[in-house]
Amino acid sequence: MACGTEDLKEGGIYLLNCPWSLEELETRLPAKVKRDLCRKHAQFYIIDAAKLAAEIGLGKRTNSILQAAFFALTKVIPLDVAVEDMKKNNYNSYFKKAGQKIVDLNNQAVDVGISAAVPVEIPASWADAVDAPAPEIEATPFVKDIVLPMDRQQGDKLPVSVFQKHGVLDGTWENGTSAYAKRGVATKVPKWDGDKCAQCNRCAATCPHAAIRPVLLTDAEKAEVPASFQTVPAKGLGKDAPSYAYRMQISPYDCLGCGVCLTACPVEGALTMTPFEEMKEEQHNFDAVAMNERYLKPDVISDKNMKSIQFAKPYFQFSAACAGCAETTYIKLVSQLVGDHMYIGNAAGCSSAYSGGAPILPYCKDQRGFGPAWEHSLFEDNAEFAYGFFHAQDAIRKEILLRLESLREAGVAVDAIDAYLANWNDREQSRAVSDALIAALEPAEKTADVAFVLENKEYLSKKSIWAIGGDGWAYDIGFGGIDHVLAQNQDVNLMVLDTEVYSNTGGQSSKATPTAAVAKFASGGKQIAKKDLGAIFMNYGYVYVAQVAIGYDQAQTLKAIREAEAYPGPSLIICYCPCLEQHIKAGMSCTQTEMKKAVECGYWQLYRYDPRRTAQGLNPFQLDSPEPDTSKLMDYLMGENRFASLKNNFPDRADALYEKAICDIKARYEKYRKMADSTNV
Amino acid sequence: MACGTEDLKEGGIYLLNCPWSLEELETRLPAKVKRDLCRKHAQFYIIDAAKLAAEIGLGKRTNSILQAAFFALTKVIPLDVAVEDMKKNNYNSYFKKAGQKIVDLNNQAVDVGISAAVPVEIPASWADAVDAPAPEIEATPFVKDIVLPMDRQQGDKLPVSVFQKHGVLDGTWENGTSAYAKRGVATKVPKWDGDKCAQCNRCAATCPHAAIRPVLLTDAEKAEVPASFQTVPAKGLGKDAPSYAYRMQISPYDCLGCGVCLTACPVEGALTMTPFEEMKEEQHNFDAVAMNERYLKPDVISDKNMKSIQFAKPYFQFSAACAGCAETTYIKLVSQLVGDHMYIGNAAGCSSAYSGGAPILPYCKDQRGFGPAWEHSLFEDNAEFAYGFFHAQDAIRKEILLRLESLREAGVAVDAIDAYLANWNDREQSRAVSDALIAALEPAEKTADVAFVLENKEYLSKKSIWAIGGDGWAYDIGFGGIDHVLAQNQDVNLMVLDTEVYSNTGGQSSKATPTAAVAKFASGGKQIAKKDLGAIFMNYGYVYVAQVAIGYDQAQTLKAIREAEAYPGPSLIICYCPCLEQHIKAGMSCTQTEMKKAVECGYWQLYRYDPRRTAQGLNPFQLDSPEPDTSKLMDYLMGENRFASLKNNFPDRADALYEKAICDIKARYEKYRKMADSTNV
Repeated sequence: MACGTEDLKEGGIYLLNCPWSLEELETRLPAKVKRDLCRKHAQFYIIDAAKLAAEIGLGKRTNSILQAAFFALTKVIPLDVAVEDMKKNNYNSYFKKAGQKIVDLNNQAVDVGISAAVPVEIPASWADAVDAPAPEIEATPFVKDIVLPMDRQQGDKLPVSVFQKHGVLDGTWENGTSAYAKRGVATKVPKWDGDKCAQCNRCAATCPHAAIRPVLLTDAEKAEVPASFQTVPAKGLGKDAPSYAYRMQISPYDCLGCGVCLTACPVEGALTMTPFEEMKEEQHNFDAVAMNERYLKPDVISDKNMKSIQFAKPYFQFSAACAGCAETTYIKLVSQLVGDHMYIGNAAGCSSAYSGGAPILPYCKDQRGFGPAWEHSLFEDNAEFAYGFFHAQDAIRKEILLRLESLREAGVAVDAIDAYLANWNDREQSRAVSDALIAALEPAEKTADVAFVLENKEYLSKKSIWAIGGDGWAYDIGFGGIDHVLAQNQDVNLMVLDTEVYSNTGGQSSKATPTAAVAKFASGGKQIAKKDLGAIFMNYGYVYVAQVAIGYDQAQTLKAIREAEAYPGPSLIICYCPCLEQHIKAGMSCTQTEMKKAVECGYWQLYRYDPRRTAQGLNPFQLDSPEPDTSKLMDYLMGENRFASLKNNFPDRADALYEKAICDIKARYEKYRKMADSTNV
Repeated sequence: MACGTEDLKEGGIYLLNCPWSLEELETRLPAKVKRDLCRKHAQFYIIDAAKLAAEIGLGKRTNSILQAAFFALTKVIPLDVAVEDMKKNNYNSYFKKAGQKIVDLNNQAVDVGISAAVPVEIPASWADAVDAPAPEIEATPFVKDIVLPMDRQQGDKLPVSVFQKHGVLDGTWENGTSAYAKRGVATKVPKWDGDKCAQCNRCAATCPHAAIRPVLLTDAEKAEVPASFQTVPAKGLGKDAPSYAYRMQISPYDCLGCGVCLTACPVEGALTMTPFEEMKEEQHNFDAVAMNERYLKPDVISDKNMKSIQFAKPYFQFSAACAGCAETTYIKLVSQLVGDHMYIGNAAGCSSAYSGGAPILPYCKDQRGFGPAWEHSLFEDNAEFAYGFFHAQDAIRKEILLRLESLREAGVAVDAIDAYLANWNDREQSRAVSDALIAALEPAEKTADVAFVLENKEYLSKKSIWAIGGDGWAYDIGFGGIDHVLAQNQDVNLMVLDTEVYSNTGGQSSKATPTAAVAKFASGGKQIAKKDLGAIFMNYGYVYVAQVAIGYDQAQTLKAIREAEAYPGPSLIICYCPCLEQHIKAGMSCTQTEMKKAVECGYWQLYRYDPRRTAQGLNPFQLDSPEPDTSKLMDYLMGENRFASLKNNFPDRADALYEKAICDIKARYEKYRKMADSTNV
């Protein structure tokens, strides 16, 4: 942990934002911090900004309080000038985006912040404080040598030799290192009440960080796990399922406290936000049981419904995404379906930042060593990059087929080869026949053909190829490449995480941005309608296209992903992702419920276009949206400051643009309705 | 003229391909050539390869004859070996693309060629041959100093100072320099029979090189033009038109002899291919009358029908396009409509090569100095490049508006400014009000505002912004940019010259290439359907989209271009362009009739999608194609070797792919038919 006290000057001011009382500091502060503060004669203050912000009504937003405390303590400029400037800045920062009320709250935060720091008398004993010996962290050599030092912000001290030692001079990174981050940044995390819980697993499905997971145990397993791992009898697993015990297990140190699980939960009180300190001991339950693959229940895990798939291991967990992020819920779900045989090309954007923010890597592998192969490419070529994955493995697999034909003629492992040749490209069977083939070839004489197949055994089973990125990638910068790849009619799956704005670079308008939304480069509200990416690709006739919103219909989302993955041609799934950059008034705990509202009023539409249906004489286009209540559209728009702020800044123009926005949305739904009605498209 | 005799070695062999008899050489050969041949004791031969090729049935293809003559004369390898190799090469070159018959014809050409060279006894008098003094060429200083030396292949001898002198160090080029090329490469050119001519102007409309033009003269004008400028009374100009005299005038030196005008002509015998030597004197009529802007008839010129618009000056003429090229007919037509106020961004490809092949520049200006501003950009950014033209002039014009507002307040040129402000962006009026404004401001006091407006007077009138390129640009490499520009809903027009293959780089498959067509990267026939570019952009709802084929329906083509240009938003016109790279069996004289066949059988569809109609409650989509006779589709495919050759090379797979091709084409027409039938799209 880097606390900054090593850089403190003699007599310097040290302000610590923490929820602790003066007394608690004795046990909470690391010895190094105590020694630094004492020996450097620091002026030490504490502040509980989170508590103050909540009291004011600013939720988790502590910035104005802490900024005020900084100016009050440091006096780098006269305090009255600072206060005036901070309040002026509040107006400039928030009035346009969020209105006068938010300006007022931040001004109140300034007033509170200037006197909120509490001075701490530093005990003389701290000069020689000594920590209890730290427990040895269980981790791989790669994590100990590279990840943990980087996590301590000491990555620039790592010598090249350590990368050489681990054979990663090419940038290869060990999977799953995000599991070691254990940030513990949430002040409150959800506490589960097994008696109230409906066991729907919606909380697990919607958690952006895979920090809450359902666990099923047999009676025997129950006996071996810690006593604190309290369970209730599992329900709703189907009449043939054994009688398992059920628990929804939170990871307090991985939870960001966003609260999405609570808003997604259908039962009042099944989850309750509870102070971290009360909950942190549950981490052991999570690590020892929920993360332990031997407790997975293959007889229950199924891709047929969202509840069942949530019992599967997520191969994407503890990413660096924002609290409340909707994007990661889609990625996690795909990883639960096909994570053990998945290749992913990731476009630049949020998803590359939270997936590849070294040293953490949220894509992990399982006990067998299987997991997603992930690589980050550019905004402008990610679909092509993933298409390269497809061609590379396809070329190797076709060479393998030739070698197997020749081995078969030579009478080697004939049965295993026959089974493989019959099922090499079958999603369900290829892993089993590959494993059997490897087992059959391993004892065989190491001819050149046998050696080739065994050297390339990782390519034997069919892989699931994905390109993932945001709307900046798919609608704008990478659109030409997406088109080219989808047009090739090969088995590549594209997932678009549509926040309707360039999120990672700070809110620039993309062609996914809808009419009337305020964004950078569209400060007067976007004048033209959102581009209909899905409709464009339905024109090819052989591209599977779906639009989904996990917060409205988890089953439809799952079905679309399942169908897209199973379709042996190109697929495109456009996923609605409410985001910080949309300035949702209800806050980021409501990203899932915001999707629900979006679908109900017709703002976002759900559909699936499946080319396989055409061959069956069916309409390939299926509209999965309900008949929208468009009377709620205006309320929906006003619930997000990206729309509502237009009225603040351009009151005379806003209404006309809102009207156009609503008209554009209705026209789009109407188009889909007609497509769904026609016998063929 | 560079004849190569300056590089001839003492006693070297010189073979001249020409239609001349031994006697004619005396008058035909330049003195420099005679002196070189005589003084260097050359072994001089002549051959009439064009005549021999025509006799064999190879049309204008002289390559095998000349190659055989080369090996026979030079004996660089034993002749029997050379003949064997040439015949082997004929098989390799032509069998796959064109079949055994073409291989046989080329083998026959080899047999003929080896003994076709006729030795010439060089008269001793040639040692001191002297030319009559060459007539002074009438040309601009730029042309004399830069263009003509480059045309003589002496461009590398030009010093930088000459470019500096002309102020063109930045690459600026004088418009219209193609008029000086006067290649005279056609052995036969069309001769017009005024008595038979229907005066439809189809020949002029379809000439790829603007080398045949209709002229109207008053009686007074008739008296002043050369006597050889024979006319007939004009007909079909409407009952209010004056009684003009009419002539269709050929430019023998600009004509490439492709014969498209004959195949496009509805009257047998109105045009007859005639030896160049008989026709070359007509050049004077073309230069003095057909090119003379004072004989243009504004009262007849109109964009309402193809006949009338052909009386307009083409601002695109004598390009370096292939004989028979269909692309240039579309560009020429646009230039006749809006060439005097047109900005063009040109993508890489054929159209950039034939439009910008220095030293010739086919975009020309008129007596007033008005003409298209043309610039070549890349494959991958041409739409954006043209969009930059739009924004640059738009920004300047909006600054002009501000200056005019301020001048108006100051009481300067109030009436002219009022008229301008009312019509500044009106296509029809902006030129007139701009001219009037300039006239009103020129005498005014040169305040900063007046000076600004006059300095920028070229931007006063509304411009017509175009991006032009081929299918490689529009369907593939530049697709992302095209999408981005069209999505912006600004007044930019895109013209796609669709040859369904990368033509300029030698026939690579693009996403415009249809199912079953053989191309590079699709040597076994394209497996997937042609991308429907137009349908993709109709999704936006505010993009004008049309598909045209000038060879089938000149009126629909004209209407689409006119509507696209008039539409104050983005437009896309997809133009069918039969091309050398399609290996049309009927030959390049039939590019226009090939389009006719393509539309009649449903291979190519004509439509216009006009967003303005939606506001009127009309279906924006209008299908202009006739009900196709799809029973002719297979015949159509077999008429082009890009399709037919598949059967030669993959006889077992070809039929299935032809079937898919026909199925894809029918599905596309069916989709359009449904769109046209529905009350709205």
